[in-house]
Amino acid sequence: MIRRRGTLFVVSAPSGAGKTTLCREIRLRVPDLAYSVSVTTRSPRPGEIDNVDFRFTAEAEFRAMLARGELAEWATVHGNLYGTRAGVLEDALAAGRDVLLDIDTQGAAQLRARYPDAVLVFILAPSIKDLETRLRERRSDAESEIARRLARAREEIALWRRYDYLIVNRDVKEALDQLESIIHAERCRVARLGLTLPDLEVQS
Amino acid sequence: MIRRRGTLFVVSAPSGAGKTTLCREIRLRVPDLAYSVSVTTRSPRPGEIDNVDFRFTAEAEFRAMLARGELAEWATVHGNLYGTRAGVLEDALAAGRDVLLDIDTQGAAQLRARYPDAVLVFILAPSIKDLETRLRERRSDAESEIARRLARAREEIALWRRYDYLIVNRDVKEALDQLESIIHAERCRVARLGLTLPDLEVQS
Repeated sequence: MIRRRGTLFVVSAPSGAGKTTLCREIRLRVPDLAYSVSVTTRSPRPGEIDNVDFRFTAEAEFRAMLARGELAEWATVHGNLYGTRAGVLEDALAAGRDVLLDIDTQGAAQLRARYPDAVLVFILAPSIKDLETRLRERRSDAESEIARRLARAREEIALWRRYDYLIVNRDVKEALDQLESIIHAERCRVARLGLTLPDLEVQS
Repeated sequence: MIRRRGTLFVVSAPSGAGKTTLCREIRLRVPDLAYSVSVTTRSPRPGEIDNVDFRFTAEAEFRAMLARGELAEWATVHGNLYGTRAGVLEDALAAGRDVLLDIDTQGAAQLRARYPDAVLVFILAPSIKDLETRLRERRSDAESEIARRLARAREEIALWRRYDYLIVNRDVKEALDQLESIIHAERCRVARLGLTLPDLEVQS
């Protein structure tokens, strides 16, 4: 049996669509899914842990990684830099592990170019009004920050057609079921199976 | 909201791979899935009900339907004719209902040509040996019939790469989970969503 290469699952969503919760919960449901921790120059929010939620880094160090070609994608979001370390990603995929990435639309576009067979999933809140409510409930953000996030959300939403799958997050349980279905279904895709098991079994 | 067109799910498998059980169980799990009852000239097996398992018909009537262009696909399998009524299928898809079809590899190829966006799922037994065991356990078939089914199974298995998804039926529950995931995932596919909900919601 020739081991198949891992599949890259990229999840994007405007702020407030519930992406962070979905990405955390899906890792409990699909424990063999590797999760790539993004590098960021932004400050940790209360409760966030370094190397678990993000790898928090100084801007100079981020720019050095970028200069060394160590990032598979990177983007500026709300004035902060975010990126994915190419080495970590490549190692997991080469070992046949499926990887989940939680990144913005700019990073997703870069990954699509680099990994054409990546699976891109877009999470949408049921409406802009709903998105605004969720952003306000978060309370950690100032009014100007909410306005900035909403403006950006509108720009991002316009890009949903570039994705493979769309999940409208009306209910967390339902959205989670859909995300899990997408992962399991993609694992059955003939195009991803390569020269694996079935060819050999047919010889028996 | 513009209603989306239904998706056609085509399930094929060599005899003994467990396709009939999976197709029966999946309809209990996904009750809004329409099932297209195939027309056949073969005799009912014990317990099979007309218009539920198959629409049993005389060969002359089958040939008349064929001549009138009423079949979306048809095939000869083990000397019997099988087909799918185009009208029933078209009505369900146009009404936005997803349809499950349980048909052989010849019919699946015809449907792929007619409906390029159909989702083709191939079910495989874990091995040829396992397939043979299952055919023998069925007991309803004579030895010559088993040999004939096995020979045909080998031919069919060679076609698995023409399908979108492959399910290796090691365990019914697991295979059923996979089939259900494929259906739910395809319902989230951006390519199938057309001009539906999200575009309109973004206006709000």
